[in-house]
Amino acid sequence: MARKASLSGFPELLPEERVVENHVLDTLRRTFELHGFSNIETRSMETQEQLLRKGEIDKEVYAVSRLQEDGPAPERRAKDRLALHFDLTVPFARYVVENAGHLDFPFQRYQIQKSWRGERPQEGRYREFTQADVDVVGDGALPFRYDVELALVILDALSALPLPAFRMRANNRKLSEGFYRGIGLTDTAGVLRSIDKLDKIGPEAVGNLLREELGATEEQVGKALALAEITAEDLSFVDRVRALGVQDPLLEEGLAELAEVIGQAAKRAPGQVTADLSIARGLDYYTGTVYETVLVGHEELGSICSGGRYESLASDGKRTFPGVGLSIGVTRLVARILSQHLAAASRKVPTAVYVALTDEDTWSAAQDVAQQLRARGIPTEVSAQAAKFGKQIRHADRRGIPYVWFTGSDEQGNPTHEVKDIRSGEQVPADPATWMPPATDLAPQVTAPAAD
Amino acid sequence: MARKASLSGFPELLPEERVVENHVLDTLRRTFELHGFSNIETRSMETQEQLLRKGEIDKEVYAVSRLQEDGPAPERRAKDRLALHFDLTVPFARYVVENAGHLDFPFQRYQIQKSWRGERPQEGRYREFTQADVDVVGDGALPFRYDVELALVILDALSALPLPAFRMRANNRKLSEGFYRGIGLTDTAGVLRSIDKLDKIGPEAVGNLLREELGATEEQVGKALALAEITAEDLSFVDRVRALGVQDPLLEEGLAELAEVIGQAAKRAPGQVTADLSIARGLDYYTGTVYETVLVGHEELGSICSGGRYESLASDGKRTFPGVGLSIGVTRLVARILSQHLAAASRKVPTAVYVALTDEDTWSAAQDVAQQLRARGIPTEVSAQAAKFGKQIRHADRRGIPYVWFTGSDEQGNPTHEVKDIRSGEQVPADPATWMPPATDLAPQVTAPAAD
Repeated sequence: MARKASLSGFPELLPEERVVENHVLDTLRRTFELHGFSNIETRSMETQEQLLRKGEIDKEVYAVSRLQEDGPAPERRAKDRLALHFDLTVPFARYVVENAGHLDFPFQRYQIQKSWRGERPQEGRYREFTQADVDVVGDGALPFRYDVELALVILDALSALPLPAFRMRANNRKLSEGFYRGIGLTDTAGVLRSIDKLDKIGPEAVGNLLREELGATEEQVGKALALAEITAEDLSFVDRVRALGVQDPLLEEGLAELAEVIGQAAKRAPGQVTADLSIARGLDYYTGTVYETVLVGHEELGSICSGGRYESLASDGKRTFPGVGLSIGVTRLVARILSQHLAAASRKVPTAVYVALTDEDTWSAAQDVAQQLRARGIPTEVSAQAAKFGKQIRHADRRGIPYVWFTGSDEQGNPTHEVKDIRSGEQVPADPATWMPPATDLAPQVTAPAAD
Repeated sequence: MARKASLSGFPELLPEERVVENHVLDTLRRTFELHGFSNIETRSMETQEQLLRKGEIDKEVYAVSRLQEDGPAPERRAKDRLALHFDLTVPFARYVVENAGHLDFPFQRYQIQKSWRGERPQEGRYREFTQADVDVVGDGALPFRYDVELALVILDALSALPLPAFRMRANNRKLSEGFYRGIGLTDTAGVLRSIDKLDKIGPEAVGNLLREELGATEEQVGKALALAEITAEDLSFVDRVRALGVQDPLLEEGLAELAEVIGQAAKRAPGQVTADLSIARGLDYYTGTVYETVLVGHEELGSICSGGRYESLASDGKRTFPGVGLSIGVTRLVARILSQHLAAASRKVPTAVYVALTDEDTWSAAQDVAQQLRARGIPTEVSAQAAKFGKQIRHADRRGIPYVWFTGSDEQGNPTHEVKDIRSGEQVPADPATWMPPATDLAPQVTAPAAD
């Protein structure tokens, strides 16, 4: 986002920036499909009743209404009023319930769409933004293994993007809640809410909260904070938790689950995942594994990818659909890539070859050349005017097009063809039926700039 | 759209239907990029002032407002009120003016996004729908050749889609207006409005309109209707217009332009484009070439792709940006493809290989296989549970996955691998480092069903 958006919070990209965003979107899509996730989209609007059901007032919902209602605006019921969705989870839950009869469970889907929130805009926080969600939902039950699978999908996806190193942090709600219960703190949600503030207010203030709001003893405060201090890239966290001497069956279940996630991640993506027992994921309704992810060196950007396991993503009253999933903040990531020049496009147009015009009568012959090149997958433009060659070449060069094609005719009147690499200046004879540029010239490349 | 949308006018697709839609979107994108068009997106919202500027009340705009305004709702000015865009032309015009300093002209862009209109839903008309727009805009001037180029891009794009035959109809506003002026009908906009009703009310009623509303004589009515009767797939329309004996410089300019479009189209896409001198494109602000397109045998669906030349797409007061472009109604097309079974996906999931589990302990080894296959571009899923093989195979088969992979170990304890083609039942030894399915099994194929 090189320029200031003309409407605050609604970023728009220049074509060369959009090449970067499309590269990110294509890479995510490719990775999700390699892992067998199906794509869906849901409509942009939900009923306000659906969106506000969990009291999500803090999401700053955008309401929608027809400007031209027929006759005087009727007092419509909340269940008929519409609003733009603020995430992809609520719409997905509705979609699953509505279409359960047509879906195969476990249902693995990804969904890449815009969402809207009327929050105060700032870097990393927009009013219109794109999220990429991957989830698996089961019908009634969902094997724990998907908690591991989902982490692996995301690690693959983020590793394929033009990003600096990232770090996924994982925890498990059962582990935390079992531990708090084991030390006698029964308001486990209250403890989680306090622990969630560790990053912002520090351990001393969190200790005060636990004492004042939950009546925790010194020993309980000490143990709760000791748990939150534990981080590890390997299974050593298990012994460190055990060393705190707390017994609880839910704690044991959570420990075993987190060990499975960290063990597989350590094997398949060494150094990318940390068990971090302070992760609480705030007020969200997770029930097992929770994940969040930061870019190393860009921690102040906040989490670029978060999620977890929820035992009841959706329910139609009779059936319950548990799920596990994560959501990547695409707009946040792309804005950071662009503003910090973490990657850039090799050119701003898809065009690889610009067919120059010798004179105005050669336009149709130039289209013949273009048609042959396009038929073999080479993006080609034809000049619209027979300006001086220098001017035509400059027009191509300014947009980063690597090749200019010249057609002429020999003494017998047969067509001749030459192609010039604008970067090197080299010009060689070429046959439109067979000539191919190097693969890296076929489409704009998105890469990190070379170090200075 | 196999099922009824739970919110009328807001279609949602099942995963196997979304495969078809993605095929359409990918094909359009690929074709536009082969022709050198850059992609952009604009924000979903514009100010109401911007959207309603041309009196577009009939587009049934959706207004947007934050549900939680800070304090009592202020009386905001119209220029600050937001609404969802109803097409991609108005946002693109704003984008061009705002970013003119960063764009290279002529600027060729495509844009594939959702738009919203609060109209009464019916087949082919939705409240949320996707359009694919291609336009070229110039700074001050834009060579006429782009009118031809744009027709060729669209013909390429539509030809690549899984559609029945289509027919593009082209006309030229200069031709019509020059002709009407030449026969003494000076309210050319009025004549166009009447002629535009030919399809609906027939020539007799249009004649009455011309007589009653514009005071046309019998001879004028006769000539105007005679012009509108002319259609041709080749340049013969030029002589037929001349035979009507009307003289006007604007008519001559329009004839020459339309002849260029039809001549090139007849050469490059024989039988796909017709000069149809009745095409008026209603109230739109076109100034030269106009296009519309119908699917043969599905004419009642209306135009699936329309557009034209406009001398002033946008203006910032000092500079004017003329353009030419067309818009494809993607949702309308996809809905028709699905409802009439014009094409379908070969499977509903991206997965090509399903790695079965022999027992619960083989999950990690199965992930190793999956990782090897994915690294070579083969979409692969790992079973989450070691159910009976028959059950695992059925789960894969139900979703159309063509291959199931089995891992075992020989007497020396070395891993063994076999892959089964579920369709043929054939099962053969395979090496996860080298085995490849046929290219047509790598991703779901979207094709027209075989004739019965």
